[in-house]
Amino acid sequence: MTDSPLAATPPARTNPHTIERLVAQLGPDVILTGSAIADRRFADWSQVPSGTVPALARPRTTQELSQIMAICHEAGQPVAIQGGLTGLAGAASAQDGEIAITLERMREIEEIDAVSATMTVQAGCVLQSIQEAAAEAGYYFPLDLGARGSAAIGGVLATNAGGNRVIKYGMARDQVLGIEAVLADGRIITGLHKMIKNNSGYDLKNLLIGSEGTLGIITRVVLRMIPRPKAISTAWCGLGDFTAVTTLLRRAQAELPGGVSAFEVMWPSYHDFVIGHFDQLRRPLQEDHAFYVLLESEGSNADIQSEQFEAFLGQMFEDGILEDAAIAQSERDALDFWDVRDAPAEFPILMPRLIAFDISFAVRDLATAADTITKGIDKRFPGALALVYGHLGDGNIHLIANIPDGDDAAIKAVEDFVYSVVSDLNGSVSAEHGIGLKKRNVLGKSRSVNEIATMKAIKNALDPRNILSPGRIFA
Amino acid sequence: MTDSPLAATPPARTNPHTIERLVAQLGPDVILTGSAIADRRFADWSQVPSGTVPALARPRTTQELSQIMAICHEAGQPVAIQGGLTGLAGAASAQDGEIAITLERMREIEEIDAVSATMTVQAGCVLQSIQEAAAEAGYYFPLDLGARGSAAIGGVLATNAGGNRVIKYGMARDQVLGIEAVLADGRIITGLHKMIKNNSGYDLKNLLIGSEGTLGIITRVVLRMIPRPKAISTAWCGLGDFTAVTTLLRRAQAELPGGVSAFEVMWPSYHDFVIGHFDQLRRPLQEDHAFYVLLESEGSNADIQSEQFEAFLGQMFEDGILEDAAIAQSERDALDFWDVRDAPAEFPILMPRLIAFDISFAVRDLATAADTITKGIDKRFPGALALVYGHLGDGNIHLIANIPDGDDAAIKAVEDFVYSVVSDLNGSVSAEHGIGLKKRNVLGKSRSVNEIATMKAIKNALDPRNILSPGRIFA
Repeated sequence: MTDSPLAATPPARTNPHTIERLVAQLGPDVILTGSAIADRRFADWSQVPSGTVPALARPRTTQELSQIMAICHEAGQPVAIQGGLTGLAGAASAQDGEIAITLERMREIEEIDAVSATMTVQAGCVLQSIQEAAAEAGYYFPLDLGARGSAAIGGVLATNAGGNRVIKYGMARDQVLGIEAVLADGRIITGLHKMIKNNSGYDLKNLLIGSEGTLGIITRVVLRMIPRPKAISTAWCGLGDFTAVTTLLRRAQAELPGGVSAFEVMWPSYHDFVIGHFDQLRRPLQEDHAFYVLLESEGSNADIQSEQFEAFLGQMFEDGILEDAAIAQSERDALDFWDVRDAPAEFPILMPRLIAFDISFAVRDLATAADTITKGIDKRFPGALALVYGHLGDGNIHLIANIPDGDDAAIKAVEDFVYSVVSDLNGSVSAEHGIGLKKRNVLGKSRSVNEIATMKAIKNALDPRNILSPGRIFA
Repeated sequence: MTDSPLAATPPARTNPHTIERLVAQLGPDVILTGSAIADRRFADWSQVPSGTVPALARPRTTQELSQIMAICHEAGQPVAIQGGLTGLAGAASAQDGEIAITLERMREIEEIDAVSATMTVQAGCVLQSIQEAAAEAGYYFPLDLGARGSAAIGGVLATNAGGNRVIKYGMARDQVLGIEAVLADGRIITGLHKMIKNNSGYDLKNLLIGSEGTLGIITRVVLRMIPRPKAISTAWCGLGDFTAVTTLLRRAQAELPGGVSAFEVMWPSYHDFVIGHFDQLRRPLQEDHAFYVLLESEGSNADIQSEQFEAFLGQMFEDGILEDAAIAQSERDALDFWDVRDAPAEFPILMPRLIAFDISFAVRDLATAADTITKGIDKRFPGALALVYGHLGDGNIHLIANIPDGDDAAIKAVEDFVYSVVSDLNGSVSAEHGIGLKKRNVLGKSRSVNEIATMKAIKNALDPRNILSPGRIFA
């Protein structure tokens, strides 16, 4: 952690009258206090702990949330916004004195419009329910991430989450057509439109998305659904150098009929580590290679999908781009490949103090970035582990560093070093997890002084009393 | 026009010392005045006229533009931002007392990064040059519109332009990875990143895009390039009802290997009018139909593209969705189809006082919207013409209305009626052209009171002296 979250907010200064007023107006079923919330978890999946929370608000409607915020605004009462609490940057971890607001009672799918291919949902709706409802309507909701069973769509949008299929379908923001939100002072802004094209004034939708609860509370959204792919092909590829990797990406995008829906790259140190440490993993290729790629392509015609996919890989082999490849012959095979890619979910058991980075660069710079970082860590911390893998097509790599017996100072030194490389290469300190409380001290490594000043001016214009998720993104 | 642009800005109050200071600091080559600009056009393609312009600034660099804005900010001097002057909402038409700033000297393509598939360009760069440079690098820049030969990318982004291929590739904003802009007070915000994923703080990029020059002046952008399609198939389809149209759209998106790159729908009144009035147009199908669709699909494999496209249309015919279809057998055929769709470019010659609407709805509501609007116009103005066509997949229709011998009051009455239908059906008064000065009086028909108040708060935070394109979007 680069920041002490306990220092993020001033000590609790909740006025007891504010809580009383909330209870009086909303009722004790909506505003919980005391023993009713004593066992409640108020921290998200990040390492940012929660503080002492004076009350939990559980609005059932946008109107109730509007009333809650009007009271909090008047009282200058800070709030933390909570969905499924699966965030990885600490934006949802309620700090000392903050009233926690959960959207857990607003999880309805309000409408599926099969002709317009849209779905209108409440912000507390869990991602997996949305995916399932789309499938039932004969469509596909492509946004997917590990926390799908808990993550609420409001939080997914507040952090503009990514996932594995960004390369084809874009980030969370790209799935949204319309939005409704409650502002800091309780006003509701409603823009629940279903149009792809809507050039009428400022893009408030994209401003709210990714603002991590600091500019408004997303309450309802119109999502777009897309046609369900008819077939999926998956291959595990071995390549000899980075140029071959980027060539494979570009040719796959140009030549595979359905394009590329996932392009996950693993460096050998990552590959060898996970194959060596997790017995349940099946090694996809027997020989060693300089790079491994998990390539996935969706198609519209199941009859010819495999044949075309194989022909493409054959051509890549002939052209000297691939050294070797294994094509999944079954769903089980494909899952085995994905298990190798998804092994980091088990890392915290092996390495409780691991440092996980979610950084991005221009695709061209990825090999340099990975090299500089891993060699730099190796030189500075002999015996340390630095594993690199990620969504290459999006420029996003995840780096896992672990320093045996490393103390806080060592962790800080690794972070400082990695983020200096990010800054030097004009990359981003957060590709898909957000800034929250966890990374606000390094925001300046990838956003300029004037950009941050502009963000603060917008924050101040929309939340002049600084009550919405205070201290997240910037102090 | 729903607004008097002459009332948009107060009478000229330019302080002559401001002009003197600009000339002294930037030189007479950058700051032109008097006879040097007497013959210069300061209005865009909209019907919004320009006013008396005291000076024209022609910065060569972001730094020079920064100096210009710092002086204007200090003096409270309003400015109008100009690219190719092809806008259709009047945002670029310089009003009385506004200094016009043109980006015409900043039209360089600074870098093409073929590995990252990105292009870094200056804002004055013309759209067609960008398309050509992408093609030379073996890529494709899919954003396309009629004004491609004049439109500057800065203006294309300031208005978030659309065009014909939005259904597959998105709006102008979807082509941008990074952005640099000069703020009202001359500060430069630099975010020229190349990553698809970058969740580090507020999305200033999407806020600037579509803000029509009111929040900042876009100076440089990083654009993404995509693989060039290997083959394009085009068909002209005749259908019996609106359900068949939306079914064709959904099935084409699901079943054509390369999806749908254009889906242009024409109502019979439009079809019959253009075929009847323009001798050079070739009628694509001999029989009459309730709807006509121009369908285009791009593919990655030229060998099997035609065969798959024909098989799909055959299936649609068998399933009773298509009544008839003509497949383009040559590029000439495809251009002939597009000529029928693009005929409105010639309309102003036939109908100098036509009223053109650029509106959008949920796809489901498009038939109702078109019906309500055309019948309503017919009832209110017997003998009036109302033609409907548009980008159906995006929910965007263009409506052309013409009232023979209609005066200003009649035009206003048509506009009031059409925008009331837009409001009733939760549509947008501007799908892809923007609001500018031309439509600011109807912004409230598709944005809520609280949304507009939020926009104004943001404007005030970033441009407290209201000097950047004042009066555009809202008064």
